[in-house]
Amino acid sequence: MQTHTQEGAVNVRLVQLEVLPGRPEANTRRMLDAVAQARADGVALVAFPELAVPGYLLGDMWDRPAFLRACEACGERLREASQGIIVVFGNVAVDWNKRGEDGRVRRYNALFFAENGRFCVSAVTRLPFVSKTLLPNYRCFDDARHFFDTRRLALEHGTTPDRMIEPMQTSLGLIGGLLCEDAWDTDYAFSPAKILAHKGSRFLINASCSPFTGDKNHKRNRVFNQLACDTGLPLLYVNTVGVQDIGKTVYMFDGASCVYDGHGHAVQAGPPFEEAVATVVLPANGAAFGEPVAPRRDSTAALAQALECGVRGLMRRLGIRRVVVGISGGIDSALTAALYSRIVAPEDLLLLNLPGPFSSQTTRGLARRLAEALGGRYAEVPITAAVELTRGQIDHLPLIGPGGTPAGTLTLGPLDLENIQARDRGGRVLAAAAAAFGGVFTCNANKAEITVGYGTLYGDICGWLAALGDLWKEQVYAVARHLNAEGFKRPVIPEGIFTVTPSAELSAAQAVDEGKGDPLIYPYHDKLFRAWVERWERATPEDILEWYAAGELEGRIGYEGKVAALFPDARTFVADLERWWNLYQGLGVAKRIQAPPVLAVSRRAFGFDHREAQLGPWLSDRYQDLRALVTA
Amino acid sequence: MQTHTQEGAVNVRLVQLEVLPGRPEANTRRMLDAVAQARADGVALVAFPELAVPGYLLGDMWDRPAFLRACEACGERLREASQGIIVVFGNVAVDWNKRGEDGRVRRYNALFFAENGRFCVSAVTRLPFVSKTLLPNYRCFDDARHFFDTRRLALEHGTTPDRMIEPMQTSLGLIGGLLCEDAWDTDYAFSPAKILAHKGSRFLINASCSPFTGDKNHKRNRVFNQLACDTGLPLLYVNTVGVQDIGKTVYMFDGASCVYDGHGHAVQAGPPFEEAVATVVLPANGAAFGEPVAPRRDSTAALAQALECGVRGLMRRLGIRRVVVGISGGIDSALTAALYSRIVAPEDLLLLNLPGPFSSQTTRGLARRLAEALGGRYAEVPITAAVELTRGQIDHLPLIGPGGTPAGTLTLGPLDLENIQARDRGGRVLAAAAAAFGGVFTCNANKAEITVGYGTLYGDICGWLAALGDLWKEQVYAVARHLNAEGFKRPVIPEGIFTVTPSAELSAAQAVDEGKGDPLIYPYHDKLFRAWVERWERATPEDILEWYAAGELEGRIGYEGKVAALFPDARTFVADLERWWNLYQGLGVAKRIQAPPVLAVSRRAFGFDHREAQLGPWLSDRYQDLRALVTA
Repeated sequence: MQTHTQEGAVNVRLVQLEVLPGRPEANTRRMLDAVAQARADGVALVAFPELAVPGYLLGDMWDRPAFLRACEACGERLREASQGIIVVFGNVAVDWNKRGEDGRVRRYNALFFAENGRFCVSAVTRLPFVSKTLLPNYRCFDDARHFFDTRRLALEHGTTPDRMIEPMQTSLGLIGGLLCEDAWDTDYAFSPAKILAHKGSRFLINASCSPFTGDKNHKRNRVFNQLACDTGLPLLYVNTVGVQDIGKTVYMFDGASCVYDGHGHAVQAGPPFEEAVATVVLPANGAAFGEPVAPRRDSTAALAQALECGVRGLMRRLGIRRVVVGISGGIDSALTAALYSRIVAPEDLLLLNLPGPFSSQTTRGLARRLAEALGGRYAEVPITAAVELTRGQIDHLPLIGPGGTPAGTLTLGPLDLENIQARDRGGRVLAAAAAAFGGVFTCNANKAEITVGYGTLYGDICGWLAALGDLWKEQVYAVARHLNAEGFKRPVIPEGIFTVTPSAELSAAQAVDEGKGDPLIYPYHDKLFRAWVERWERATPEDILEWYAAGELEGRIGYEGKVAALFPDARTFVADLERWWNLYQGLGVAKRIQAPPVLAVSRRAFGFDHREAQLGPWLSDRYQDLRALVTA
Repeated sequence: MQTHTQEGAVNVRLVQLEVLPGRPEANTRRMLDAVAQARADGVALVAFPELAVPGYLLGDMWDRPAFLRACEACGERLREASQGIIVVFGNVAVDWNKRGEDGRVRRYNALFFAENGRFCVSAVTRLPFVSKTLLPNYRCFDDARHFFDTRRLALEHGTTPDRMIEPMQTSLGLIGGLLCEDAWDTDYAFSPAKILAHKGSRFLINASCSPFTGDKNHKRNRVFNQLACDTGLPLLYVNTVGVQDIGKTVYMFDGASCVYDGHGHAVQAGPPFEEAVATVVLPANGAAFGEPVAPRRDSTAALAQALECGVRGLMRRLGIRRVVVGISGGIDSALTAALYSRIVAPEDLLLLNLPGPFSSQTTRGLARRLAEALGGRYAEVPITAAVELTRGQIDHLPLIGPGGTPAGTLTLGPLDLENIQARDRGGRVLAAAAAAFGGVFTCNANKAEITVGYGTLYGDICGWLAALGDLWKEQVYAVARHLNAEGFKRPVIPEGIFTVTPSAELSAAQAVDEGKGDPLIYPYHDKLFRAWVERWERATPEDILEWYAAGELEGRIGYEGKVAALFPDARTFVADLERWWNLYQGLGVAKRIQAPPVLAVSRRAFGFDHREAQLGPWLSDRYQDLRALVTA
């Protein structure tokens, strides 16, 4: 296809690539294909995302010279392929003669401009690439750990960074190159985009590797549109799709590439979560184009799509085909099973109900009905005999002291017996069944449970992935409703699962048929925990109690009910607050250290985005004064 | 005690404090006591470590305003206590009116100088503290994530950092303040210490929070002595003791505070791993003092001391008093048990032998003899019945398909049965026994096993802490020998445990009495894995194969034997290389994500010091070419 454009207009192409992390050769093969196609299509410039060659979230992969050499060799192939076309791509750049501040060979998060077989070279830095200037060091991002940058480079040259930032000279004129955070400049001392505009750029390219976060595109549209308008330049935003992880925390990349015209309009250049190639005509003389930018908030549908993308992508990457889900008849395991049923073939999905001494006929029936509706394979494996065997072996076990003397016996308490049941389900049955089935088993925990460690390590807190681990309980219900209504268009998750009391069913105190269940109060605890975990300046009991005392708590944490309706007085309020805070900061941390990875969808997911030490629960002196006052 | 000194000489005191991470009020109480004592002793200046008020390794604790307020209030109390004495201490400094680059309130890793109830104020920055200039972003350190710094400050002021760095004016004259990394300046564009010297400092103080790492003090003595000599100034190094962690990775701080005289001599100002208060007289006119600096390498004794300090400190912090160790009759569990026996009372240590279908009389006897020698409580809990129960429930389990139709059965393979045994020991028996005993249970894995995931998740890879998780197998043997010889001064670990073939005893193929055991070849695999994990520029199979082809492998990885004696030809060498590499980068990563924390003693420990994503094993194109050549 030869595209015809008006005089002076420029055809540019954004390639919203699925980048395979840590697979430079594979990514490059696909990029070379896209370059060849772009050239055949008569496109003047083709742009790929940030770190499209190596991938972005690679942990400490950057300290392996063999990997850096491979990435460099891939970059050379892309350079060679740039005959008659401008190829803009993200890659790691290596300066083998210099050291980074970690004492290792120096690496840059770099944007390369190749044309006619040569890399464009910066007139100031003399480097054949644009170096990322603003390195994010929050959430999961560790850029300062891995990469040298324009600011440190300026320091080394005894100058200021604005002098080191300049557009690249190409046959299309000066083009300003930005890498992701470079355009999120509101919290930095200067704006690389504005410097590039000031230095005569014809348009700006922002190559990104920016993960999906609920409502982030809303903010991005606002910030990037403003930047385009402020500079008066078209801004091309090209982002990755796919899945990248940093161990404990798995991120989905939604692409959503977009071209902003500098006049308050934009052209969508890629659908969310899918690979796409979009060619956009930049009109001559900087005329307006596209539709007015109208930011929209993300819906539950986007959340569901992100989760599906994450599970599918990570399974494919790790070569996982078969999955076992333990289904209890509750909502978390039901949504987990429903999610997997959309990804794996029915014969590759095994749903297991594991009734124990306290499982009700209600939940067992709901589990069976769910399995029927989802159409996977199904079996029941009771745990009672094994639990009794463990009880028999451990309770009253005689211990031997020095010289063979008797030294007391062990005694199992009620809570110990609850955990034994949970571990029997997870660490014994599900793990063995998954191995026999030739697959993995899932962790069905939600974010509220993970926050306070409401779950048993090696029991329900185990499995290959906690797909719902970044969803509050109310989001679990909302996504489940959405899947029934829009995903399946029939109630595959039985209504009874929405209405049954959430319960671990590990003791008589948790009998669902008597309306008894878990001690968590939804959605109040969702909102309370969210204030502890997700607020940008995280709240502690000191803040919570201050808001409570001022009668502002509901508004501050976004709880639509009345706190006074839950707790008759300040004493019970404080007891509840401390109970869960102590768990969040105490055993909760220990459990998260050994918990499965989560799919991150919020702006603060557990794992690498919520770094924590085993500090134990801390309550400030000021909190203690406040408590004395409030509960007096 | 009033100390008398020659005219012009200055008495300075270094307080090698055990800093409790995340407990500002508790730390400050102890610091106030030390200030009062120093004043009573007639000392002119008292110096505390970096971040002595809040602690250093706190994860993301810094994003809680309530915590920052508490630290600030503590700083005020120290300021008020500085009547008639100079108090130098590390604390977080907060600028509530400015933002950091993460959009949160701005925080500095700061060194405060208080005197006569006032903070010394920098003449240039106008800030009442010295800000850390060089922020480490390697190993476990995330300084750029948490703190603003002098370099970014300079940028904001439109100037260069050297202008922002200056000594503090005190009644003793100008004193140059440095925070830890500021003096480890060899990989940075400039040296804060030299700038401070150039600007007329009388002496330098380096307040640190620097964790123990085998042989690091050797390097520190070299670097710091050189810096003191280069500047011609005394350099006071005051470091923390105690234990701080970042979830997966637990660090021990050894103090080892020291004063360098600027003439190649030094005075030790604190023994390793213990709190200490040392008063040093800085002579008038910069005269020499102390002993010649003679760096020594760390011994196995230091390693053993670090491990003991780590286990003891973390147990105390988390309130753990009782411990269960599963002892197999092998060296890893024997050393673990021996280590705990030095920390907990005999009645608080429970040693369990868990014989299974393949356990030999040899190892069972060794376990019993170990328990006798250590004097803890002891019991045997066989796992065979439970393993049979699981096999009976899962093997041949009939599955149900849609509409209740039969849909095949499950089948357990031989490896599945090995893992069932391991999980039965860990997730079933040890977890239940620890709960009944009122304590925790240990993970006994060593670093070689953790590298390649040679162990079963929820089985032998579980427990509260892997105390030996940063020790290669040969280090495990060495520390065990050391404890027998020096720690206990008798063979509490029976000689048979040193000589028995290392074996998991999970199948007939691992029968120790026939000399069969684990597939790992020690110490060759120790050395190979170390090259993958600990080299500063990490090696990959590409590097290994290159060295092998060049006949250099033994020298490169420090293996004292001959590789040719282990592998008859290149094919078997390559098969072994890829087998373990694939495990290290494949299942090994998945297991480490859910593995217990480790005590870090090397310069690269698993967890936060070895960040990784589930990328799967990558072999470069160049490796594949090389392999074709070598195995042709």
